[in-house]
Amino acid sequence: MNIIDIIDKKRMGKELSEEEINYFIEGYTKDEIPDYQAAALIMAICMNGMNEDEILAMTLAMANSGEKLDLSDISESVVDKHSTGGVGDKVTLIISPIVASLGVPIAKMSGRGLGITGGTVDKLQSIPAYRTDISIEEFKSNVKEIGISLISQTMDLAPADKKIYALRDSIAAVNSIPLIASSIMSKKIAAGSNKIVIDVTYGSGAFMKDKMQAKRLAKAMQEIWKGKDKQITCVISKMEQPLGYSVGNILEVVEAVQALHGQMADDLKEVVITMCVQMLKLAGRTETEKELENQIWEVIHNGKAFEKFVQLAQKQGADASYLYDLNKLEKAPIIVPVISEKNGWVKELNAEKVGKISIDLGAGRKNKTDEIDRRVGIILCKKIGDKVENGECLAYLHANHSEKIDDLVEQLKSAYQIVPETIAKEKIIDEIL
Amino acid sequence: MNIIDIIDKKRMGKELSEEEINYFIEGYTKDEIPDYQAAALIMAICMNGMNEDEILAMTLAMANSGEKLDLSDISESVVDKHSTGGVGDKVTLIISPIVASLGVPIAKMSGRGLGITGGTVDKLQSIPAYRTDISIEEFKSNVKEIGISLISQTMDLAPADKKIYALRDSIAAVNSIPLIASSIMSKKIAAGSNKIVIDVTYGSGAFMKDKMQAKRLAKAMQEIWKGKDKQITCVISKMEQPLGYSVGNILEVVEAVQALHGQMADDLKEVVITMCVQMLKLAGRTETEKELENQIWEVIHNGKAFEKFVQLAQKQGADASYLYDLNKLEKAPIIVPVISEKNGWVKELNAEKVGKISIDLGAGRKNKTDEIDRRVGIILCKKIGDKVENGECLAYLHANHSEKIDDLVEQLKSAYQIVPETIAKEKIIDEIL
Repeated sequence: MNIIDIIDKKRMGKELSEEEINYFIEGYTKDEIPDYQAAALIMAICMNGMNEDEILAMTLAMANSGEKLDLSDISESVVDKHSTGGVGDKVTLIISPIVASLGVPIAKMSGRGLGITGGTVDKLQSIPAYRTDISIEEFKSNVKEIGISLISQTMDLAPADKKIYALRDSIAAVNSIPLIASSIMSKKIAAGSNKIVIDVTYGSGAFMKDKMQAKRLAKAMQEIWKGKDKQITCVISKMEQPLGYSVGNILEVVEAVQALHGQMADDLKEVVITMCVQMLKLAGRTETEKELENQIWEVIHNGKAFEKFVQLAQKQGADASYLYDLNKLEKAPIIVPVISEKNGWVKELNAEKVGKISIDLGAGRKNKTDEIDRRVGIILCKKIGDKVENGECLAYLHANHSEKIDDLVEQLKSAYQIVPETIAKEKIIDEIL
Repeated sequence: MNIIDIIDKKRMGKELSEEEINYFIEGYTKDEIPDYQAAALIMAICMNGMNEDEILAMTLAMANSGEKLDLSDISESVVDKHSTGGVGDKVTLIISPIVASLGVPIAKMSGRGLGITGGTVDKLQSIPAYRTDISIEEFKSNVKEIGISLISQTMDLAPADKKIYALRDSIAAVNSIPLIASSIMSKKIAAGSNKIVIDVTYGSGAFMKDKMQAKRLAKAMQEIWKGKDKQITCVISKMEQPLGYSVGNILEVVEAVQALHGQMADDLKEVVITMCVQMLKLAGRTETEKELENQIWEVIHNGKAFEKFVQLAQKQGADASYLYDLNKLEKAPIIVPVISEKNGWVKELNAEKVGKISIDLGAGRKNKTDEIDRRVGIILCKKIGDKVENGECLAYLHANHSEKIDDLVEQLKSAYQIVPETIAKEKIIDEIL
């Protein structure tokens, strides 16, 4: 077997065997296959696709390329969640304590943000002294003790995926359903998950640009996740505008805490409740969805969900006083309003543009090694369907310096499309698969 | 402009602009663009193709990536020739002295062999003391003085092509018409050619596997070669069996000298006469093809063509006594006959298999840095259409050791297909474009 023949086969549109895929993943992980041959094969895969068998083989090969976490000693029903990414997506921070406070253990490893989609780890680190890098033993014992732990991916999970992901990023090969599906699922297998709810986003703020692609990705992931003891639910949701009102790390922690107290933007509420219900169902809860929804609101209103979040933060070393008094959290030195020059209704609020502005403000990374500023970001005052008057505030930029701020204000203004007729607010979740 | 956007554009099947192609070629030549990004783009080009404008831009960018030779001070009508490669192709050695002895200057840089197709430089170096590495000044002055010089590509011509060629070889991207066409033509432009005859081969012994591909390649090259003072003729020829009777460096020099004395296998004769006629026509000769053919036979029969070869060899330092007494040339220590076990006619003689056996014998290189043995190779006694009797000799292997020789004998036997019915000898040149 040799890599040139494997590249040639995929270039010609033929199916790769499990052995060939293993040969590639093992060789590339061990640096025996150079980047340029991997790049050629990855490009051929992007262009000619992979069938279900190939995607499964690729996923398993990547999952098996490094260490694997075993969570079976914690509980039968540790339920994981994942989002394919979105601007302003702080859902993990909200639903994890809700679900944990309803008795379902949450043991979750999260990533850092890259590009326009934020990362849960960056948000958790915005809570002063929160340690995302505790040991695996501590992680597991926290879950056993208080039912929840959220940490960063400290183990060497799926190193082949890490190498291939970085390569894809540099060769315009990010947008490929077989490669996205195998990347997500390989990490989840390595992280010990067997039940998982995935928010598959599409639209200007997501990797998938349309619903058809999102459904194809969901189908590809479900094909991988077949088999004994494995359960998966995919929630297909539209990400045309940012989720909720805030984009940026500290700003999103504030919004998450407010959500745990029951205050949520309509779109955020829709995703939070749906994801929680689906996670509870996968955990084996047999109540109706309506009953589960009532239970969720109960732990929000009686404060148990928020208390679980406080307990989580304290257990991981954080100073929880910041969660009780959000004003104590650091603020950006410069806050600039973005004022509407039109009367009308918001027809469009481009999530991709908002995401890019948040990166320019310093809230996100263009490159892996970029430093971020947890204070900066954007607070949206108006979202799609909202009525706007001339002179009213559309949003606030939270910045750390005033250079180029006028330009960013103009960019944010141009992310809004305001029209004279009323615009209906639409549901963002399309389907649950 | 950035390389990721350029890769993405080609991945999506869009046309690259001249600026984008220049950006890639310049960046890659200067090592500013890494191999893995080049590999991804090259694979996308292989799979999505390039249109005429893109191929031309790529060719010119590669031609301009290094030094360029100026032959305009030698003559108005320096005519170059090229072959897209074939097993046993010693045509350059034969036609160069013929054409030069008819008064058309030949100033030609040639390459070394790689893979199953041999290289003219390796064959020239089989003549004891022949120097292929003379300076450009000496090269030009030789052409002015005796009308001919054949050397190796010593200048840094089209370095971008060299890098891309090596990369293509390692990522299964050799077989691509836009890339083959731009590779050949960029070197020819850098070598100062403006009139060129190209033997575009197809079949088991060539890069192009069928006639349709060969014609598409010819058309692509003709599109590049448009414009003032530029002339190109493409000869489309079939390469199912090796050309002539010998494969291997010294063995092919012997066959070339015999050809210059008028003894040529039918297929070799067809290519030699056709290529000479087309070169003379490009040089401005206005006689009919029949008249030109007569002139060619005249310089063969009166010894002028052979004497021009002798003069060339002497001028480049060689001991020409070897050309007068071919028996003085070194011989392989082991010569093994391959005996037919069948009666019948040769229906097939697979050029690719013969080429691979010649590499195994040591006559060719698998990798660029391999040492070759100029003595070894294969003499074919029977070619397609020949009658064969059980016990008759099909071929001789010229080897430097006996290890695995039985296996190679069997392999050569299997390259022959012998059938009971008569097989017509076919012309190998299909078309002149």
